Order: sequence, then C-alpha cells, then structure tokens
Amino acid sequence: MQVYLDNNATTMCDPQVVEVMQPYFSEQYGNPNSLHKFGSSIHPALMNAINQTYTALNAADADDIVFTSGATESNNWVLQSVWIDHILNGDKNHIVTTEVEHPAILATCKFLEDQGVKVTYLPVNHEGVVEVHTVKSFITEKTALVSVMWASNETGMINPIKEIGEICKEKGVLFHTDGVQAIGKIPVDLQDVHVDFLSFSAHKFHGPKGIGGLYIKDSQALSPLLHGGSQMGGRRSGTLNVPYIIGMGKAIELATQNIQSTMASIRAKRDRLEDALLELSDTFVVGDRNNRTPNTILISIKGVEGEGMLWDLNNGQIGASTGSACASEDLEANTVMLAIGADNELAHTGIRLSLSRFTTDAEVDYVISHFKGAVARLRNISSSFAKQGPSKGGEVQECELHHH
Amino acid sequence: MQVYLDNNATTMCDPQVVEVMQPYFSEQYGNPNSLHKFGSSIHPALMNAINQTYTALNAADADDIVFTSGATESNNWVLQSVWIDHILNGDKNHIVTTEVEHPAILATCKFLEDQGVKVTYLPVNHEGVVEVHTVKSFITEKTALVSVMWASNETGMINPIKEIGEICKEKGVLFHTDGVQAIGKIPVDLQDVHVDFLSFSAHKFHGPKGIGGLYIKDSQALSPLLHGGSQMGGRRSGTLNVPYIIGMGKAIELATQNIQSTMASIRAKRDRLEDALLELSDTFVVGDRNNRTPNTILISIKGVEGEGMLWDLNNGQIGASTGSACASEDLEANTVMLAIGADNELAHTGIRLSLSRFTTDAEVDYVISHFKGAVARLRNISSSFAKQGPSKGGEVQECELHHH
Ligand SMILES: Cc1ncc(COP(=O)(O)O)c(C=O)c1O
Ligand SMILES: Cc1ncc(COP(=O)(O)O)c(C=O)c1O
Repeated sequence: MQVYLDNNATTMCDPQVVEVMQPYFSEQYGNPNSLHKFGSSIHPALMNAINQTYTALNAADADDIVFTSGATESNNWVLQSVWIDHILNGDKNHIVTTEVEHPAILATCKFLEDQGVKVTYLPVNHEGVVEVHTVKSFITEKTALVSVMWASNETGMINPIKEIGEICKEKGVLFHTDGVQAIGKIPVDLQDVHVDFLSFSAHKFHGPKGIGGLYIKDSQALSPLLHGGSQMGGRRSGTLNVPYIIGMGKAIELATQNIQSTMASIRAKRDRLEDALLELSDTFVVGDRNNRTPNTILISIKGVEGEGMLWDLNNGQIGASTGSACASEDLEANTVMLAIGADNELAHTGIRLSLSRFTTDAEVDYVISHFKGAVARLRNISSSFAKQGPSKGGEVQECELHHH
Repeated sequence: MQVYLDNNATTMCDPQVVEVMQPYFSEQYGNPNSLHKFGSSIHPALMNAINQTYTALNAADADDIVFTSGATESNNWVLQSVWIDHILNGDKNHIVTTEVEHPAILATCKFLEDQGVKVTYLPVNHEGVVEVHTVKSFITEKTALVSVMWASNETGMINPIKEIGEICKEKGVLFHTDGVQAIGKIPVDLQDVHVDFLSFSAHKFHGPKGIGGLYIKDSQALSPLLHGGSQMGGRRSGTLNVPYIIGMGKAIELATQNIQSTMASIRAKRDRLEDALLELSDTFVVGDRNNRTPNTILISIKGVEGEGMLWDLNNGQIGASTGSACASEDLEANTVMLAIGADNELAHTGIRLSLSRFTTDAEVDYVISHFKGAVARLRNISSSFAKQGPSKGGEVQECELHHH
C-alpha cells in the first residue's frame, strides 16, 4: 500500500480537474486576449472559472480576484508593492508579520529589511497561534501592512483572522492573510471577515501546481508586481494560463462546495489516526484539534529524529514531512516548533501528517500500524541515531535539482 | 476551413507535449522538493526536462536556467532586480532598451522611470531593426543594463544580438535579450553569443501557457523577484510546476531539434503567402524577409483598417492580429509601425500573419483566396469605413474579462 499524507505540501490534482483542463491545450488554444474566435471562444469557460472562484470565496462583485503563478507570487506581490507604494514612495516604514509564516512571507520580509523596512515578527503562543492583543500592540502610525497567515502549513493551527481584520480596519492598516492552508479546509467567507488581500494556491486544494491568486478587497490600489501587456485589467500581466485557470475554478468549487461534510469525514479519520498515535508513550501533538485544520497532525515523538522517522515511513511507502518542503531546511530544527517554544530536541522530532479527501480508512489503518512499528524500531536505536545524526544518502533525496 | 495564423501571440500545445505532461497531474503528483518517494520519483523526468532545455539553447554547465511563469515574469525579474541591485543599491542610474520591445519590457521601464531610473528607448531603422552603433552611442558609465529583444513579435525582424552582446561585454554592461520570438524560429546558441540574461516563454513554441524561463550566463548574481521556499537554488521560489516544466522540455526539444528543415518548410509557405498578398496593389510588408523570423508577415494594405480586416478574416475562420494581443491596444495605431516611421494611416493598416509548423499548404491557399476577397470588400467600403472607424461590437470581442 502507498499512502500519501503530505497534502499540506501539495495534493493530487483531482481527475475531474484534469478533465476540464484537457480541451484547452491542443484544441482551444487561442489567447483569450486575441480578437478572433480562437481567442474569444475561450471566454465562457474562463468566465465560468472566475465565477467559481468568486463563489468559493464569497467575494463581492466590487472585489478583484487576480490569477497569479501561485501563493509565492501573491505573497511577494503584496509585500513588495506595499513597500513600493507606502514605504519607498510613502511615509510608512513598518510591516507586521509573525514568526510562523511560510518562507514566501519570511524571505520576502528579510529582503525588505535589507531595503530598510522595519519588520516585526510577532511571537505566537504555545499552541502556535497569534494572539489578537499582540497584533494590536505592535501596530504603530508607521505600519503599512499586517500579514498573518489564516492557517499554518506546519501545525494546521488557525489564527483569529476575523478579529485581527477588525483591528486593522479600526487602525486603518492594510491587512493581508496567506490563505493557502485555509481554503478547502475551513470555510473562508470574504464577506464575513475584513481582509484587504488574501493569497491562495491551487495545488493545495487538488488543483494544478503553478497557479494561484490574490483576492483584493474593493479592488483597492496595489502596484503590479508583473508589468506588461495589461492582462487582468493591468493588475497582473502575462499571457493567461487558460487550462490552469479553468482547472483551478473547478478545483476550488470541488474543495468548497460540500466543505462541512467533506471535512467532517477527513476530521474523523484524522482524529482516529491522532488518537492511535497518541497511545504511544512520550508523544504530543501541537495545538488544540478544535482550532486546527481538520486534516493536519504535527506530532512529536520523544527520542525519535524526524528525519529518521521520515525515512522509515518512506520505506513503508508513506509520504509525510518534517514540516517544511525543502530537504535543506528539513535537516534543521522545525522553526515553527522553535517559535512555539519547544526546546531544540523536540523541534527535531516533529512529523507532519496531512490528510486529504482522498485519504481512506484503510490507509489510516495501515499508517497507524506502520507508524507504531517505526517508532519502536527507531527508539531501539535512538541513542546511537541521535549521536550520528540522520543519514543524508540512501532513500532520502537531496532537495535541489541541478543540471548534470 | 479554420486557419490559425496568430502563432506569434500563442501556439497550439503540441499533442506530444500534452502527452508527456499527463502523468504528472494525478499520478506522480508529489512535490519534487519533498523527501519521500512521491517527491523524488519525479526527479528523473525533471532532470530530463532541464537537460532538454540546456541542450536546446546550448547553455553551458556553468549557466543557470531558471523556470518562471513566463517571459513577462522573466523580463520583470531582470529589469526590477537590476534596478534594485545596481541602481537603488548601487551607483548606476540608467537602462537602455528600444522603442519596439514587448509591453513586458516597456511597461516595466515606465514603472522604473517612476522610481527615478533613466531609461533610453532606442529608435529603430525603417525596417524596425536596432542598429549596433545606436546601442553603442547611448551606453554611459551609469548604464546598468541593455535590453534588446532578439526578434520582434510584431514584425519578426531580427536584431544583431551577437554584435550588441560584444559591445555590452566590451563596455562591461549587463545585456538582456527577450528571446521569446527567437526560440524555435531561428537558431539560438548561447555559447555563440554573449548574453547575460535571456527570457523565454513556452507557449510561443507549442508548449503550455504560463511557463517560461530565464537563462543566466555563468550563474551571475541577480536578486530574486520571488522570494520564499528557496526552490531553484533560491533563485525563484514557488512550488515547481512539474507538468509544465516537463512539457516545456519536450516542447523546446521539438522546436529546436530539426530547426533548419522545419523552418525551411515554414519559410516556403510564408514566402508563398507573402508573394501572393503582395500582388495586391498598394501593399507592403515590413522588413527584409531574409532578416525576419521565417513564420512572420506584417503587411500593410493601403486604405484598409487593420480592425476591419481582422473582422473579415475572422468571419472566414482565419485568426490573425493587428500586431499586439490586447483589444484595447489593437484599436490604437500599431506602435511598432509608428516607431519604424510609418505614418499614422499606415500604422492603422497593419495585419500580422504568423505561421507555425502545423500550418499546411491547403491553409495557405485558403488564406490567400479569402484575404484577397477581404481586401476587395473592404476597399469598396473603405472611404465610409475610414470615417466611421471600426465597429467595436459584433464579432470583435473586448479584451478584458470581468467577473459577471
Ligand atoms: C502557507 C503557505 N503559503 C504559501 C505557500 C506557497 O505556495 P506556492 O509554492 O504554491 O507558491 C505555501 C506552500 O508551499 C504555503 O503552505
Ligand atoms: C517578445 C515577447 N516578449 C514577452 C512576451 C510575454 O510572454 P508571456 O505573455 O508568456 O509572459 C511575449 C508574448 O506575449 C512576446 O512576444
């Protein structure tokens, strides 16, 4: 049996999504911005995808949803354009974010610090959650933007986005949320919360990799990151990725239309898995499961290095993660666990299991059994393992792909 | 019969390309940066695509080729990062480009001018070609970058990239070329020319829309445009678009492997079409066909508005262009023709026909016949047509796609 439990890293593209994209490669291949029928014949399907996206997020007609190459682009866009619009060419100097954001936020903030921007990285509580009063206390008159992720890719913990949005509105500060891990996992209703910008990425909800978007409330001003041929109303230039936009429309519809019942089913499997793994001695799971995305477990197993665990699971055909997606980072401590306040040993023992709507009960059974065996095996050799460190060779592949 | 002659705007995705992408949506869907087999099993196909791309461009092992979401991103990346690295944080203040670049260059330059950068837009000669001595004469000590497209999307005219590269090297100035319209149309050998950065986009050579790349000679320094998870050696973050990277590898291989014979065949059809259309009175084609990409014709028909012509061709199931891909721009004069020095009337009469390796002789025959009929029809009504201006409704669709 093969079991993929790394759905917070990426997901299988739903076969229904693949199917709707198919005609737009070699049959209806025109550029939708062209004036002839090869171009205009694509408009109905594109409009449909746009409407599916608005509906899924409950965006208002006055809002903009702009398609990008993914959440990395969307996150960079917001941060860099807020820098240019309000700091480089304005009178602000400060951005507030958190210690537990995705690298697409953190690395961009580091870059902006090099450009002279003041960045506050808010601490989180012991559950990995950003507290509302903390956000409030760090906003100053010079703050241009607050950026807080909706749900964490590593822990699944859900931040109080509605309350943070209210504070930002009250203080007149722009508010961005990285919504990547929320969409398709918890209800996201953009008329219920006050969010100026929200990033999303299709491959986290069974759409294709390399497409995503940025929601912009009330079509508010924001300089483009990609200048050019004025596609998407001039907000994001570049020939439209027609198949993927259409695929993402279908994917977001599928991911949100029956979210309550789909998530109830995933949650039941996740809870069963979590309960079974917690029967092991000296283990703990980060964060209250009621305030966590229903598909995620970040479990720490005392005395068992995350890397070793990953290797044993991999031998059992189980795909999991130590929390982030890049090998070079995986060999470091889990920075989110460190931010939460776990000590260094604990931060090396995190294993993230993330389910999807395609995860079956039989797969959960198999994982429970293999996981328990793996812990027994690794605890047996853990003292020597801890001394040597994890092997870099063998089954565990390097992250970077180079030519030759 | 339907005939697509707008291949400089976008191309059909080759069915062979679609086929190689297929397994990477719902079967091998792992994130290649993950440590488990779901991720690492993708490495061989990715490595193959990387090698196909290096081979197609004859890049050296020491060079970097970084995948992006397309040439718009690649062009923005080079210009914006040169601005940040060498102007904002350096002692340069000047960029040299041309009047006939794609909007992905021109609009980015306008943005940089707003940030205080001095930009020189080089004029072109009456054939639309940038002359080497012009480039040389505008480079100063303060010049950070020269950016000149390899071949024009509108005219197909080929610039003297080798000679411009030599001058830039001699003067110690970075040299970027937008290679979008060159790849797959003329030989591009990056060990034969001195180019620091080259942009490309897969959908111009029968690959998918929304993927492209940036070649970086000798892996030279350039700040990232997209910061984040450190994919692609930290040069361009964002989850890899695995299917499209693999598809682009196949597409660039197919587009370049027999380029001489494929292009001879396209050139023969193009020349036949061009000769036939030039039999019409008061017509001219921009630029010497021996210095033009072998698939392109930009023809001007005196007294016939480009828009009207497009409409009549469209009724005949023929897809062509007035030169640029966006309706709102199409209703303006062709800026490239204006740059070449055509008067305003001529600049309104340009029709671009761009062939591909899928264009057949029967299609060429059909276009010749329909085109001649269209010119006769439109010249008949041309005086009134010229007074009213082209209709904006009817078959000609608006460019922008909006929600609802
Ligand atoms: C929370 C979060 N933000 C941003 C991203 C970046 O998305 P992408 O790699 O698709 O650009 C990811 C996933 O990688 C994520 O989990
Ligand atoms: C010369 C040139 N440069 C850049 C681009 C932009 O490519 P893309 O829209 O794929 O980003 C195009 C085509 O649109 C082009 O013809």
